[in-house]
Amino acid sequence: MPIDAVAEPAPLQSLDLPQPYLLFLGDVQHPAFAKTAFGLRDWAPERCIGEYALPGATVGLGLTQMDPGQAHAAGARALVIGVANVGGVIPAHWMPALLDALSNGLDLIGGMHTRLSEVAPLREHAQRHGRRLIDVREPPADLPTGSGRKRSGKRLLTVGTDCALGKKYTALSLARAMRALGIDATFRASGQTGLLIAGRGIPMDAVIADFASGAAELLSPDAHAGHWDVIEGQGSLSHPAYAGVSLALLHGSQPDAIVVCHEPGRTELLGYPGYALPSIEETIDLNLRLGRRTNPAIRCAGVSLNTSQLDPTQAQALLDSESARLGLPVADPIRGGASLQALVRACLNDPG
Amino acid sequence: MPIDAVAEPAPLQSLDLPQPYLLFLGDVQHPAFAKTAFGLRDWAPERCIGEYALPGATVGLGLTQMDPGQAHAAGARALVIGVANVGGVIPAHWMPALLDALSNGLDLIGGMHTRLSEVAPLREHAQRHGRRLIDVREPPADLPTGSGRKRSGKRLLTVGTDCALGKKYTALSLARAMRALGIDATFRASGQTGLLIAGRGIPMDAVIADFASGAAELLSPDAHAGHWDVIEGQGSLSHPAYAGVSLALLHGSQPDAIVVCHEPGRTELLGYPGYALPSIEETIDLNLRLGRRTNPAIRCAGVSLNTSQLDPTQAQALLDSESARLGLPVADPIRGGASLQALVRACLNDPG
Repeated sequence: MPIDAVAEPAPLQSLDLPQPYLLFLGDVQHPAFAKTAFGLRDWAPERCIGEYALPGATVGLGLTQMDPGQAHAAGARALVIGVANVGGVIPAHWMPALLDALSNGLDLIGGMHTRLSEVAPLREHAQRHGRRLIDVREPPADLPTGSGRKRSGKRLLTVGTDCALGKKYTALSLARAMRALGIDATFRASGQTGLLIAGRGIPMDAVIADFASGAAELLSPDAHAGHWDVIEGQGSLSHPAYAGVSLALLHGSQPDAIVVCHEPGRTELLGYPGYALPSIEETIDLNLRLGRRTNPAIRCAGVSLNTSQLDPTQAQALLDSESARLGLPVADPIRGGASLQALVRACLNDPG
Repeated sequence: MPIDAVAEPAPLQSLDLPQPYLLFLGDVQHPAFAKTAFGLRDWAPERCIGEYALPGATVGLGLTQMDPGQAHAAGARALVIGVANVGGVIPAHWMPALLDALSNGLDLIGGMHTRLSEVAPLREHAQRHGRRLIDVREPPADLPTGSGRKRSGKRLLTVGTDCALGKKYTALSLARAMRALGIDATFRASGQTGLLIAGRGIPMDAVIADFASGAAELLSPDAHAGHWDVIEGQGSLSHPAYAGVSLALLHGSQPDAIVVCHEPGRTELLGYPGYALPSIEETIDLNLRLGRRTNPAIRCAGVSLNTSQLDPTQAQALLDSESARLGLPVADPIRGGASLQALVRACLNDPG
């Protein structure tokens, strides 16, 4: 692959977000509703210039509190809606704050079901002030269909036994750990929170089905031979609703290595009673079998377990016993430590 | 399953087309560009009231030639653009004919890349005359995500070793052959030509990826225990661009039986040099393994071969030798005969 073939996606085909961000918390009263804001604070602190909560909010991020005018003066370029509320709508009592952000030179970035651009007062105010309303659930236009062409550089994809068990955090952790070893590694976001953290990416679940693997190809473009893209996985090949997205992402990513993410103790798919969770071994086998189609050299580097429900001793015992049982490195990336280092070395195919 | 759960998709969630059709041929000069018109003539003659060609056309369907006014008087309710041209655009010299159709009380139905509603004169004329512009590539709004819930009735899905080798024709043939046996069978269209033939369906390739298996669930709704939906397949699980769509359709269809479609002699995926065609056995195995997730009772009923390149003697010899090799009924539905009857009986799980 000639080096001049190494290019980032064209501007029209990726979401490049204005930054740094002011994180908007609304009047949030439970941390679970501020997952996006916490994710940004933890994984993209350099993009987060402050937080902005309304009276009544009881959750804070520990960042400097600012209003939109102060944030813009401090360099912020966008207000990110960092909270979700039930139904995914924008409540009326948030509107003055959002309009104030637009008046003060900030673009608005949202990832809710309701598109910002569908809210007439926001649309009109943004137009008047020359500001942008950016919905990160909106995929890029003019996506290509998949080509199946082998790209240069190395790729890792996190895959899972189910949704919502750590594929994003695992990818972020592995990319960070690789960079700590001096590897040129890039986290590639395929979902909305990951996309806000990375500042770019493609929301795979929002792409037209015929272009899904083409979108995945675009997400991790040609790179130099020593570069690693660490790609956030979506769904599961065994999920009755989302397996198609998972397969398109697997084919388009053409990963050299996969890491299987799992939550110990989960026995059924979340929200799908009667659908037994596939085993880790079945998940490895299925991903390798299907992934070989676009990368015959695909291998499983190891397993990421979400052990947040266990105490440290129990967690380490489980990581050790699962590693012995599967014959693979097994780590909880959030806990880090020697297990994580072994997993990262296995990803890089370096026995260390 | 209570009988009152048996329902067709709600009107907003399916494309129900106005009919019968007047088939528009433009100034087509090669039959390959009139595939949609020929498909409609062959498979939905009761929907086709006549054909309408412009001066210069050299291809005819053998139907009564009519202009839009005559067609409307004869009962037509829509003009279907039955030809494709290079680039998928609507040429300027077609416009007078299309405007004339709208003036004469016909809706317009198209499946080209250019949406009819994006052509300003058509849009304005349709509005003035109270007519509809229907793009069959436009998926229904408000699709649900897949539920994985088992539905009543029986389902057959045609799957393939590649694209464009007979999945639609096989499904149409099997549905017709089932009905000839007195079975209550419905062809379910998942692509644009199939959709025009059936008069309804969902264009699976145009659906947002997250809703693809939900769309497939909607395509073959609950039915009575003896009813068969015969579902048009899309793509191939081994296709680097379209496997995601194929998997979503497989999961959402939850077929009781699959029929694998293949073109003898094809060794690489069409348009994907270097991508070897999967074997029939691999295609069966992969579809059954993945299909078991939403229907543990899935089985392969047999194989459909597109033998259009062979003479009748060669074709029958191949059907016989492949049937012996695979231990399954193998037929060319276009040729019909005893092989097709055996395949249909195997679909119905009736040894005959």
